[in-house]
Amino acid sequence: MYDHDAFSQWLGIKILSFGTGSCLIEMVVRGEMTNGFGIAHGGISYAFADSALAFASNSHGFQAVSIETSISHLKAIQVGDCLQAQATEKARTRKTALYEVEVKNQEGTLVALFKGTVFIKDKQWV
Amino acid sequence: MYDHDAFSQWLGIKILSFGTGSCLIEMVVRGEMTNGFGIAHGGISYAFADSALAFASNSHGFQAVSIETSISHLKAIQVGDCLQAQATEKARTRKTALYEVEVKNQEGTLVALFKGTVFIKDKQWV
Amino acid sequence: MYDHDAFSQWLGIKILSFGTGSCLIEMVVRGEMTNGFGIAHGGISYAFADSALAFASNSHGFQAVSIETSISHLKAIQVGDCLQAQATEKARTRKTALYEVEVKNQEGTLVALFKGTVFIKDKQWV
Amino acid sequence: MYDHDAFSQWLGIKILSFGTGSCLIEMVVRGEMTNGFGIAHGGISYAFADSALAFASNSHGFQAVSIETSISHLKAIQVGDCLQAQATEKARTRKTALYEVEVKNQEGTLVALFKGTVFIKDKQWV
Repeated sequence: MYDHDAFSQWLGIKILSFGTGSCLIEMVVRGEMTNGFGIAHGGISYAFADSALAFASNSHGFQAVSIETSISHLKAIQVGDCLQAQATEKARTRKTALYEVEVKNQEGTLVALFKGTVFIKDKQWV
Repeated sequence: MYDHDAFSQWLGIKILSFGTGSCLIEMVVRGEMTNGFGIAHGGISYAFADSALAFASNSHGFQAVSIETSISHLKAIQVGDCLQAQATEKARTRKTALYEVEVKNQEGTLVALFKGTVFIKDKQWV
Repeated sequence: MYDHDAFSQWLGIKILSFGTGSCLIEMVVRGEMTNGFGIAHGGISYAFADSALAFASNSHGFQAVSIETSISHLKAIQVGDCLQAQATEKARTRKTALYEVEVKNQEGTLVALFKGTVFIKDKQWV
Repeated sequence: MYDHDAFSQWLGIKILSFGTGSCLIEMVVRGEMTNGFGIAHGGISYAFADSALAFASNSHGFQAVSIETSISHLKAIQVGDCLQAQATEKARTRKTALYEVEVKNQEGTLVALFKGTVFIKDKQWV
């Protein structure tokens, strides 16, 4: 799935570990990812967490698409910061599931907390 | 503010109109913005809406930073789609404010609904 | 549906108007609905908006259950305030739908903004 | 604070444990708390979690008010269910803080996941 995920590759995401319903990924913030304040654009930490959600929620073999998500921006993210996102499955039924993603910086400080609900299709990954 | 917003420029955002507490922006989805399903990555519509939030919430002259946001992904966004985001101020006090951003495609279909709360600093823009 | 909704009746909710995918309801805040600050408990405006969501999302004839919701508390609600909640359908597919509910007080001030995603069952209302 | 919280008392909330930035509370669902489906109204689990947020976020001595919250409804809650809500502080600055509240039933199943951002006033509790 990651091989065909062009934007996750632009972000420079590396998958550190992967399991059914969970994953741990990493990326380093670059200058082209900043906003008008010179810190990482909110869309960067969101996209990073959303990729973790996608990898974790599609790990059961059925296609899952994000329908409703929220993110709390807790601490400014600087250029050069190495971020890790840990996705955890909080609940899963046949048609929907909920995941939480914690985004931490290289000091282990929680910089963003993400929550995502996915809709699970009947279509399976080949 | 936009001139120093590197990521909004990578997204190719154009500001169509701008007022105190509101803005209307536009962007076209490119292939490098897609996810493993070949449609726009959730982080793209989020980042686009988050930029609209930033422009609208900082328009009063005081620096505002996004603290809590949510986005509903309503319809798949395809490469080549021309998106418009309209940010509207729903409420504003001295220290916090709430904005809603509607993201529509070239057919006027609502593809994402974004809600964002910002914290307003005492620091003014020069 | 409302006839069997014990908590909506405890809240004293009146349905002012009702259509497919929308509704307008009203209630008056009582002393037993307050929190430690002497203003309406956050659960009151949420429950009021959630009832509007339920009435609007079940209006198509299929059973719909709320799976993910958020509410922004914008202004303190006082005992005696007469609240109105307007639910609007923002998007609807066969299995999920999104509604927005605006809660206003007797002065027409927006006191809370609610967003709710429902899951639509195949089961129909008789 | 709880002594003056009329609605938390109507809910029958008991405080099991309490610390700086956290608390564990309990309540039993009654018939008058149900919705049109005969299960607990979404406003009940929300109000229960919001009370946990209030107790935890006000524990530092400064008045904190909830500004933006979300809740995921994960499993139907039945009359007679004994619920516990555990509030945890995820981040706190001088003016805002983020809390997560897990609501579980008597079997330890997660029935709702709540996230709340509060605004911290300069006013202290006496």
